Amino acid sequence: MDEFRLTEHKLFDREREIADSLPAIFAILQTRGFNLHRTFTNLDLNHLNTIFVSVGFPKRDPEKIKIALQHTDSLLWIEYTKTQKPVAFARATGDGVFNAIIWDVVVDPSFQGIGLGKALMERLVEELVVEKGIWNIGLYAEGRVVGFYRDLGFAADPDGIRGMVYSSKQKKT
Amino acid sequence: MDEFRLTEHKLFDREREIADSLPAIFAILQTRGFNLHRTFTNLDLNHLNTIFVSVGFPKRDPEKIKIALQHTDSLLWIEYTKTQKPVAFARATGDGVFNAIIWDVVVDPSFQGIGLGKALMERLVEELVVEKGIWNIGLYAEGRVVGFYRDLGFAADPDGIRGMVYSSKQKKT
Repeated sequence: MDEFRLTEHKLFDREREIADSLPAIFAILQTRGFNLHRTFTNLDLNHLNTIFVSVGFPKRDPEKIKIALQHTDSLLWIEYTKTQKPVAFARATGDGVFNAIIWDVVVDPSFQGIGLGKALMERLVEELVVEKGIWNIGLYAEGRVVGFYRDLGFAADPDGIRGMVYSSKQKKT
Repeated sequence: MDEFRLTEHKLFDREREIADSLPAIFAILQTRGFNLHRTFTNLDLNHLNTIFVSVGFPKRDPEKIKIALQHTDSLLWIEYTKTQKPVAFARATGDGVFNAIIWDVVVDPSFQGIGLGKALMERLVEELVVEKGIWNIGLYAEGRVVGFYRDLGFAADPDGIRGMVYSSKQKKT
Protein backbone atom coordinates (compact mmCIF):
# COMPACT_ATOMS: atom_id res chain seq x y z
CA MET A 1 0.00 0.00 0.00
CA ASP A 2 1.52 3.16 -1.25
CA GLU A 3 1.49 6.87 -0.84
CA PHE A 4 -0.08 8.62 -3.79
CA ARG A 5 3.33 9.78 -5.01
CA LEU A 6 2.50 13.44 -5.06
CA THR A 7 5.92 14.74 -4.15
CA GLU A 8 5.39 18.30 -5.34
CA HIS A 9 4.69 20.27 -2.18
CA LYS A 10 4.39 23.78 -3.50
CA LEU A 11 1.07 25.36 -4.24
CA PHE A 12 -0.20 25.29 -7.76
CA ASP A 13 -2.10 28.10 -9.45
CA ARG A 14 -5.29 26.17 -8.83
CA GLU A 15 -4.89 26.23 -5.05
CA ARG A 16 -3.94 29.91 -5.09
CA GLU A 17 -6.96 30.81 -7.18
CA ILE A 18 -9.29 28.85 -4.91
CA ALA A 19 -7.76 30.30 -1.73
CA ASP A 20 -8.08 33.82 -3.15
CA SER A 21 -11.68 33.40 -4.27
CA LEU A 22 -13.06 31.71 -1.17
CA PRO A 23 -13.52 34.77 1.09
CA ALA A 24 -15.63 36.39 -1.65
CA ILE A 25 -17.69 33.22 -2.10
CA PHE A 26 -18.44 32.96 1.61
CA ALA A 27 -19.21 36.69 1.82
CA ILE A 28 -21.84 36.15 -0.88
CA LEU A 29 -23.20 33.10 0.96
CA GLN A 30 -23.45 35.20 4.12
CA THR A 31 -25.56 37.84 2.36
CA ARG A 32 -27.83 34.97 1.34
CA GLY A 33 -28.33 33.87 4.93
CA PHE A 34 -25.67 31.16 5.32
CA ASN A 35 -22.82 30.90 7.80
CA LEU A 36 -19.73 28.70 7.71
CA HIS A 37 -18.63 26.84 10.85
CA ARG A 38 -15.45 24.85 11.54
CA THR A 39 -16.38 23.14 14.82
CA PHE A 40 -19.38 21.04 15.76
CA THR A 41 -20.15 23.00 18.96
CA ASN A 42 -23.51 24.33 17.73
CA LEU A 43 -24.16 21.61 15.19
CA ASP A 44 -27.50 19.84 15.61
CA LEU A 45 -26.39 16.22 15.17
CA ASN A 46 -29.91 14.83 14.99
CA HIS A 47 -30.77 17.23 12.18
CA LEU A 48 -27.51 16.39 10.41
CA ASN A 49 -28.43 12.73 10.70
CA THR A 50 -31.78 13.35 9.02
CA ILE A 51 -29.92 15.01 6.11
CA PHE A 52 -27.58 12.00 5.88
CA VAL A 53 -30.60 9.70 5.71
CA SER A 54 -32.41 11.96 3.20
CA VAL A 55 -29.56 11.53 0.68
CA GLY A 56 -29.39 7.76 1.21
CA PHE A 57 -26.69 7.31 3.85
CA PRO A 58 -27.41 4.65 6.46
CA LYS A 59 -28.93 6.04 9.66
CA ARG A 60 -26.29 6.10 12.40
CA ASP A 61 -26.33 6.48 16.16
CA PRO A 62 -25.92 10.25 16.96
CA GLU A 63 -23.72 9.31 19.94
CA LYS A 64 -21.38 7.45 17.59
CA ILE A 65 -21.46 10.38 15.14
CA LYS A 66 -20.34 12.61 18.02
CA ILE A 67 -17.40 10.30 18.79
CA ALA A 68 -16.49 10.22 15.09
CA LEU A 69 -16.53 14.04 14.93
CA GLN A 70 -14.32 14.24 18.02
CA HIS A 71 -11.82 12.13 16.07
CA THR A 72 -12.15 14.28 12.95
CA ASP A 73 -9.30 16.71 12.18
CA SER A 74 -11.11 18.95 9.72
CA LEU A 75 -14.82 19.63 9.79
CA LEU A 76 -16.95 22.17 7.98
CA TRP A 77 -20.64 22.88 7.94
CA ILE A 78 -22.91 25.57 6.59
CA GLU A 79 -25.73 26.87 8.75
CA TYR A 80 -28.91 28.38 7.35
CA THR A 81 -29.16 31.31 9.77
CA LYS A 82 -32.95 31.57 9.51
CA THR A 83 -33.39 28.09 11.04
CA GLN A 84 -29.93 27.77 12.70
CA LYS A 85 -29.82 24.26 11.23
CA PRO A 86 -27.03 22.71 9.17
CA VAL A 87 -27.69 22.50 5.42
CA ALA A 88 -24.29 21.28 4.24
CA PHE A 89 -21.53 19.25 5.87
CA ALA A 90 -18.13 17.67 5.11
CA ARG A 91 -15.28 16.28 7.19
CA ALA A 92 -11.82 14.78 6.81
CA THR A 93 -9.86 12.32 8.94
CA GLY A 94 -6.19 11.48 8.58
CA ASP A 95 -2.74 11.68 10.11
CA GLY A 96 -2.46 15.47 10.01
CA VAL A 97 0.67 15.44 7.85
CA PHE A 98 0.57 13.18 4.80
CA ASN A 99 -2.89 11.74 4.26
CA ALA A 100 -6.51 12.80 4.60
CA ILE A 101 -9.76 11.14 3.59
CA ILE A 102 -12.93 13.13 3.09
CA TRP A 103 -16.16 11.62 4.42
CA ASP A 104 -19.84 12.43 4.78
CA VAL A 105 -20.10 15.20 2.21
CA VAL A 106 -23.77 16.11 2.20
CA VAL A 107 -26.08 18.95 1.18
CA ASP A 108 -29.70 19.13 2.34
CA PRO A 109 -31.79 18.28 -0.78
CA SER A 110 -33.81 21.51 -0.30
CA PHE A 111 -30.58 23.50 -0.63
CA GLN A 112 -28.89 21.64 -3.48
CA GLY A 113 -27.95 23.29 -6.78
CA ILE A 114 -26.86 26.65 -5.35
CA GLY A 115 -23.16 25.88 -4.96
CA LEU A 116 -23.01 25.00 -1.26
CA GLY A 117 -21.38 21.60 -1.85
CA LYS A 118 -18.75 23.00 -4.21
CA ALA A 119 -17.95 25.92 -1.85
CA LEU A 120 -17.64 23.55 1.12
CA MET A 121 -15.41 21.08 -0.75
CA GLU A 122 -13.13 23.83 -2.10
CA ARG A 123 -12.84 25.25 1.43
CA LEU A 124 -12.03 21.81 2.86
CA VAL A 125 -9.38 21.03 0.23
CA GLU A 126 -7.89 24.50 0.77
CA GLU A 127 -7.72 23.88 4.53
CA LEU A 128 -5.96 20.53 3.97
CA VAL A 129 -3.57 21.62 1.21
CA VAL A 130 -2.83 25.28 1.95
CA GLU A 131 -3.18 25.40 5.75
CA LYS A 132 -1.97 21.92 6.69
CA GLY A 133 0.26 20.98 3.74
CA ILE A 134 -1.54 17.65 3.24
CA TRP A 135 -1.38 16.62 -0.40
CA ASN A 136 -2.66 13.04 -0.32
CA ILE A 137 -6.40 13.60 -0.16
CA GLY A 138 -8.74 10.77 -1.01
CA LEU A 139 -12.42 10.00 -0.92
CA TYR A 140 -14.82 7.24 -1.91
CA ALA A 141 -17.47 8.41 -4.34
CA GLU A 142 -20.66 6.79 -5.54
CA GLY A 143 -20.92 6.63 -9.33
CA ARG A 144 -23.44 9.48 -9.55
CA VAL A 145 -21.08 11.98 -7.85
CA VAL A 146 -17.81 11.00 -9.56
CA GLY A 147 -18.25 13.92 -12.01
CA PHE A 148 -18.83 16.39 -9.15
CA TYR A 149 -15.53 15.37 -7.54
CA ARG A 150 -13.68 15.25 -10.87
CA ASP A 151 -14.59 18.93 -11.44
CA LEU A 152 -13.06 19.67 -8.04
CA GLY A 153 -9.73 18.11 -9.03
CA PHE A 154 -10.20 14.51 -7.88
CA ALA A 155 -9.27 11.60 -10.13
CA ALA A 156 -10.45 7.98 -9.98
CA ASP A 157 -7.68 5.37 -9.83
CA PRO A 158 -4.76 7.68 -10.74
CA ASP A 159 -1.64 5.81 -11.92
CA GLY A 160 -3.49 2.51 -11.57
CA ILE A 161 -3.91 2.94 -7.81
CA ARG A 162 -7.19 1.30 -6.77
CA GLY A 163 -9.42 2.28 -3.90
CA MET A 164 -10.33 -0.95 -2.10
CA VAL A 165 -12.84 -1.63 0.67
CA TYR A 166 -12.95 -4.45 3.17
CA SER A 167 -15.95 -6.70 3.01
CA SER A 168 -15.96 -9.99 4.83
CA LYS A 169 -19.29 -10.81 3.20
CA GLN A 170 -17.81 -10.41 -0.26
CA LYS A 171 -14.98 -12.71 0.74
CA LYS A 172 -17.33 -15.39 1.96
CA THR A 173 -19.49 -15.61 -1.17
CA MET B 1 -19.58 11.02 -0.61
CA ASP B 2 -21.07 7.99 1.00
CA GLU B 3 -20.50 5.47 3.69
CA PHE B 4 -19.75 2.04 2.32
CA ARG B 5 -23.21 0.79 3.27
CA LEU B 6 -22.01 -2.10 5.36
CA THR B 7 -24.80 -2.07 7.87
CA GLU B 8 -24.25 -5.59 9.19
CA HIS B 9 -22.41 -5.12 12.46
CA LYS B 10 -22.11 -8.66 13.72
CA LEU B 11 -19.02 -10.73 13.23
CA PHE B 12 -18.90 -13.11 10.33
CA ASP B 13 -17.30 -16.54 10.40
CA ARG B 14 -14.31 -15.09 8.59
CA GLU B 15 -13.54 -12.60 11.38
CA ARG B 16 -14.02 -15.29 14.04
CA GLU B 17 -11.71 -17.69 12.24
CA ILE B 18 -9.04 -15.02 11.84
CA ALA B 19 -9.32 -13.86 15.46
CA ASP B 20 -9.07 -17.47 16.66
CA SER B 21 -6.06 -18.31 14.49
CA LEU B 22 -3.98 -15.19 15.12
CA PRO B 23 -2.50 -16.08 18.53
CA ALA B 24 -1.17 -19.33 17.02
CA ILE B 25 0.27 -17.50 14.02
CA PHE B 26 2.10 -14.98 16.20
CA ALA B 27 3.32 -17.75 18.52
CA ILE B 28 4.91 -19.40 15.49
CA LEU B 29 6.40 -16.08 14.37
CA GLN B 30 7.87 -15.65 17.85
CA THR B 31 9.62 -19.02 17.69
CA ARG B 32 11.12 -17.80 14.40
CA GLY B 33 12.56 -14.68 16.03
CA PHE B 34 9.85 -12.10 15.38
CA ASN B 35 7.90 -9.96 17.83
CA LEU B 36 4.69 -7.98 17.29
CA HIS B 37 4.40 -4.43 18.62
CA ARG B 38 1.38 -2.13 18.80
CA THR B 39 3.05 1.19 19.66
CA PHE B 40 5.96 3.03 18.03
CA THR B 41 7.90 3.54 21.28
CA ASN B 42 10.84 1.35 20.25
CA LEU B 43 10.36 1.66 16.54
CA ASP B 44 13.44 2.88 14.64
CA LEU B 45 11.81 5.44 12.32
CA ASN B 46 14.93 5.95 10.21
CA HIS B 47 15.15 2.23 9.54
CA LEU B 48 11.43 2.09 8.79
CA ASN B 49 11.95 4.93 6.32
CA THR B 50 14.67 2.97 4.51
CA ILE B 51 12.21 0.07 4.14
CA PHE B 52 9.57 2.46 2.76
CA VAL B 53 12.09 3.72 0.22
CA SER B 54 13.30 0.19 -0.63
CA VAL B 55 9.78 -0.78 -1.77
CA GLY B 56 9.34 2.39 -3.80
CA PHE B 57 7.56 4.78 -1.43
CA PRO B 58 8.75 8.40 -1.56
CA LYS B 59 11.32 9.25 1.11
CA ARG B 60 9.68 11.27 3.86
CA ASP B 61 10.92 13.43 6.71
CA PRO B 62 11.22 11.16 9.83
CA GLU B 63 9.95 14.04 11.99
CA LYS B 64 6.81 14.20 9.87
CA ILE B 65 6.48 10.41 10.03
CA LYS B 66 6.57 10.72 13.84
CA ILE B 67 3.77 13.31 13.79
CA ALA B 68 1.76 11.09 11.44
CA LEU B 69 2.19 8.10 13.80
CA GLN B 70 1.09 10.21 16.76
CA HIS B 71 -2.13 10.84 14.80
CA THR B 72 -2.53 7.15 13.92
CA ASP B 73 -5.16 5.17 15.84
CA SER B 74 -3.96 1.67 15.03
CA LEU B 75 -0.37 0.76 14.36
CA LEU B 76 1.38 -2.58 14.11
CA TRP B 77 4.95 -3.57 13.39
CA ILE B 78 6.98 -6.74 13.51
CA GLU B 79 10.45 -6.66 14.99
CA TYR B 80 13.21 -9.06 13.99
CA THR B 81 14.53 -9.73 17.49
CA LYS B 82 18.06 -10.56 16.31
CA THR B 83 18.54 -7.00 14.99
CA GLN B 84 15.76 -5.28 17.00
CA LYS B 85 14.78 -3.57 13.74
CA PRO B 86 11.33 -3.40 12.15
CA VAL B 87 10.78 -5.75 9.21
CA ALA B 88 7.05 -5.20 8.64
CA PHE B 89 4.71 -2.30 9.33
CA ALA B 90 1.10 -1.19 8.83
CA ARG B 91 -1.11 1.53 10.26
CA ALA B 92 -4.68 2.84 10.08
CA THR B 93 -6.17 6.30 10.57
CA GLY B 94 -9.83 7.14 10.91
CA ASP B 95 -12.59 8.38 13.17
CA GLY B 96 -12.45 5.50 15.66
CA VAL B 97 -16.07 4.48 15.09
CA PHE B 98 -17.18 4.20 11.46
CA ASN B 99 -14.24 4.53 9.08
CA ALA B 100 -10.60 3.53 8.89
CA ILE B 101 -8.05 3.75 6.11
CA ILE B 102 -4.98 1.54 6.07
CA TRP B 103 -1.68 3.17 5.04
CA ASP B 104 1.99 2.36 4.67
CA VAL B 105 1.76 -1.44 4.59
CA VAL B 106 5.32 -2.57 4.04
CA VAL B 107 7.53 -5.65 4.46
CA ASP B 108 11.32 -5.46 4.27
CA PRO B 109 12.22 -7.08 0.90
CA SER B 110 14.66 -9.45 2.70
CA PHE B 111 11.74 -10.78 4.76
CA GLN B 112 9.05 -11.01 2.10
CA GLY B 113 7.32 -14.27 1.15
CA ILE B 114 7.14 -15.75 4.67
CA GLY B 115 3.68 -14.47 5.57
CA LEU B 116 4.58 -11.40 7.63
CA GLY B 117 2.46 -9.03 5.52
CA LYS B 118 -0.56 -11.31 5.60
CA ALA B 119 -0.26 -11.88 9.37
CA LEU B 120 0.07 -8.14 10.00
CA MET B 121 -2.88 -7.22 7.79
CA GLU B 122 -5.13 -9.90 9.34
CA ARG B 123 -4.15 -8.65 12.80
CA LEU B 124 -4.88 -5.03 11.82
CA VAL B 125 -8.27 -5.84 10.30
CA GLU B 126 -9.10 -7.93 13.38
CA GLU B 127 -8.19 -4.99 15.65
CA LEU B 128 -10.40 -2.64 13.64
CA VAL B 129 -13.39 -4.96 13.15
CA VAL B 130 -13.43 -7.14 16.28
CA GLU B 131 -11.90 -4.81 18.89
CA LYS B 132 -13.17 -1.44 17.66
CA GLY B 133 -16.28 -2.38 15.69
CA ILE B 134 -15.14 -0.42 12.62
CA TRP B 135 -16.54 -1.98 9.46
CA ASN B 136 -15.74 0.60 6.81
CA ILE B 137 -12.09 -0.14 6.13
CA GLY B 138 -10.47 1.16 2.97
CA LEU B 139 -7.05 1.37 1.41
CA TYR B 140 -5.42 2.51 -1.82
CA ALA B 141 -3.53 -0.28 -3.56
CA GLU B 142 -1.08 -0.20 -6.44
CA GLY B 143 -2.02 -2.55 -9.25
CA ARG B 144 0.63 -5.15 -8.34
CA VAL B 145 -0.79 -5.64 -4.79
CA VAL B 146 -4.52 -5.63 -5.61
CA GLY B 147 -4.52 -9.46 -5.56
CA PHE B 148 -2.81 -9.54 -2.16
CA TYR B 149 -5.55 -7.35 -0.67
CA ARG B 150 -8.33 -9.20 -2.51
CA ASP B 151 -7.21 -12.43 -0.80
CA LEU B 152 -7.51 -10.60 2.53
CA GLY B 153 -11.15 -9.68 1.85
CA PHE B 154 -10.78 -6.28 0.17
CA ALA B 155 -12.69 -5.44 -3.00
CA ALA B 156 -11.94 -2.77 -5.61
CA ASP B 157 -14.82 -0.37 -6.33
CA PRO B 158 -17.58 -2.36 -4.59
CA ASP B 159 -21.10 -1.36 -5.67
CA GLY B 160 -19.63 1.14 -8.12
CA ILE B 161 -18.02 3.21 -5.33
CA ARG B 162 -14.81 4.73 -6.70
CA GLY B 163 -11.70 5.59 -4.75
CA MET B 164 -10.68 9.08 -5.86
CA VAL B 165 -7.54 11.09 -5.15
CA TYR B 166 -7.00 14.83 -5.28
CA SER B 167 -4.47 16.05 -7.78
CA SER B 168 -4.31 19.72 -8.64
CA LYS B 169 -1.76 18.92 -11.34
CA GLN B 170 -4.20 16.56 -13.03
CA LYS B 171 -6.84 19.28 -12.95
CA LYS B 172 -4.56 21.80 -14.61
CA THR B 173 -3.48 19.68 -17.57
